[in-house]
Amino acid sequence: MILNIDRPLVKFIFILISILIMTKIRESRLTKIRVLIAPERSKRPREEPKTNGEKEGKCPFCPGNEKITPPPEILRWPHEGPWDLRCFPNKFGVFKIEAETIYEENEDEEQETENVRGAHEIIVETPEHEDNILTISQKRLENMLGAYKDRILDLSKDHNIKYVQIFVNCGAEAGATLKHSHSQIIATSYIPTLVKTELNRARGYYETHNKSIFDWIIEKDKKEGRVVKESDNLIICVPYAARVPFELFLAPKDNVPYFEHSHGRIGELAWLLKDSFLRLEKILCSLPAYNLVLHTAPPKHVMESYPFFRWHIEIIPRTTKLGGFEFGCFEYINPELPEKVAESLRDIII
Amino acid sequence: MILNIDRPLVKFIFILISILIMTKIRESRLTKIRVLIAPERSKRPREEPKTNGEKEGKCPFCPGNEKITPPPEILRWPHEGPWDLRCFPNKFGVFKIEAETIYEENEDEEQETENVRGAHEIIVETPEHEDNILTISQKRLENMLGAYKDRILDLSKDHNIKYVQIFVNCGAEAGATLKHSHSQIIATSYIPTLVKTELNRARGYYETHNKSIFDWIIEKDKKEGRVVKESDNLIICVPYAARVPFELFLAPKDNVPYFEHSHGRIGELAWLLKDSFLRLEKILCSLPAYNLVLHTAPPKHVMESYPFFRWHIEIIPRTTKLGGFEFGCFEYINPELPEKVAESLRDIII
Repeated sequence: MILNIDRPLVKFIFILISILIMTKIRESRLTKIRVLIAPERSKRPREEPKTNGEKEGKCPFCPGNEKITPPPEILRWPHEGPWDLRCFPNKFGVFKIEAETIYEENEDEEQETENVRGAHEIIVETPEHEDNILTISQKRLENMLGAYKDRILDLSKDHNIKYVQIFVNCGAEAGATLKHSHSQIIATSYIPTLVKTELNRARGYYETHNKSIFDWIIEKDKKEGRVVKESDNLIICVPYAARVPFELFLAPKDNVPYFEHSHGRIGELAWLLKDSFLRLEKILCSLPAYNLVLHTAPPKHVMESYPFFRWHIEIIPRTTKLGGFEFGCFEYINPELPEKVAESLRDIII
Repeated sequence: MILNIDRPLVKFIFILISILIMTKIRESRLTKIRVLIAPERSKRPREEPKTNGEKEGKCPFCPGNEKITPPPEILRWPHEGPWDLRCFPNKFGVFKIEAETIYEENEDEEQETENVRGAHEIIVETPEHEDNILTISQKRLENMLGAYKDRILDLSKDHNIKYVQIFVNCGAEAGATLKHSHSQIIATSYIPTLVKTELNRARGYYETHNKSIFDWIIEKDKKEGRVVKESDNLIICVPYAARVPFELFLAPKDNVPYFEHSHGRIGELAWLLKDSFLRLEKILCSLPAYNLVLHTAPPKHVMESYPFFRWHIEIIPRTTKLGGFEFGCFEYINPELPEKVAESLRDIII
């Protein structure tokens, strides 16, 4: 039997399906909270990331299974022989670089939709399925941070990209669906809400006080006993208003807006990250599920310079659950006093 | 041996300890996100709320164990004989009515602290340890909603109270530490962030369009297929920008700012709530962990009237985990298309 398929009809059906699975960017009509509606992601496979030590033959991030991950291979270090690090598009990405996203704006009665570009990539920072931030080698950790820089610089070349957000979900409690250690990159055609808030606040403080808000924050953290550890150029503190127990804030001590242009501090950062997670592991008796978030200044094509901003990393251990108060008020209840947490973490001998 | 204790010294030590365990309200220096630092809450006992069906002799919310809950007993319905509903202060409350909270303001170099009032109460809406929103009787559910009204009205009499936030955490995934069905009330000396956002936005829309934003939202939900169910006076929809899969929004169809003054609709609301949770149970194969949040207009002593606002209930099933993108951007990724979810929920035959 020969199926006589109408070509324009097939094309029409294809477009219809793509619209259905396309990511839509929506803002709540009541609160303006931004949501990325990404039906493509509901197809993700779910492995139990808790089951450490199990043999899992089909991990898409393990060596030998490279073909399961979608092309193109964006990074492969080293280029030949067994790899230490790979970067490729997220198979179930929120965004695709070919502009399959719709930004729906809903002010007033009008509904405007706009096609926007974006990217969603995965960095696998180790070929070892069982590795975590504590067991990974210093070299691979430095590689990972180098890949962060590399991807921010490359994605920022696209003038449609207004921000590159890098984050880690480690452990089921932190939203990970796969156990094999990896980082995620989401590049957006707009500046994300919290980054915009930080930029506005930092700019406002700078204009009023002719001083970096980060200098003020670090001064206060030092004075009020929230410093956990310092290295030559970097400092790690428990934030004054930590959202969750054991939240950490890592930043350079001097004014460096762009993570991707912070030359020569990769080794120091890798060491400080490992030191912090070792402290968390000791105090919590095991490595907690956690999120790690990197905030850097937006690309230079968005604005020429950000003298008021400073890149920083937020580490959010997920030892407690968010409840109705957090969802209903957009505020947090944290049962641990930041000064006390900082003291306990500081006192640990590594 | 007789201990000769210095009275002023004892008092001083007592004050020192209270300051340490006092709740502190802090705003992030960088993002202005508000956090309630509540060390008292770290003492909470943790029962595994997942272990349904187990006999738990020591549940503080079960009949016979009333003495474990702190005095005073705020509500006991009926007053005599076995109770259907009780309300009492939260033993590990974020706030105490006797003003043991400090509001720390940190604008500029100055750090101002202010003692603020607040309350944190528990409503136990059923004496049955195993009850949930599906098994609880219609009468007890109406009782619960009546108690919400009662407590909002009573707490609002205190002119230090600027808002009364009622919420439910059901299931471990939703932040519950005890399994026995209960609701929580947090009364604050300020209007919570998200409620303030809603009020400002609703006011702005009303001033520009001379129309309630809620009318516009419901019109759009009807037109775009996001209605799940309607009763005479109430409607339940999947929000246009639902933050999580299966999020629901319930509101009156006419302009009623105050939940506590919405006379005679308790029965209808109890019925609609049950109907919605039955639909969620059918589609998800079991009752999910969830948060329920009630937003009403602030007390009349805060502002005389809120013609632009409307009370509403948000139901947030916790079937997915928040990850680094949510924490790092203050935005959400939702893999389910709201229109599709609404259709599936609407099509269920109860």
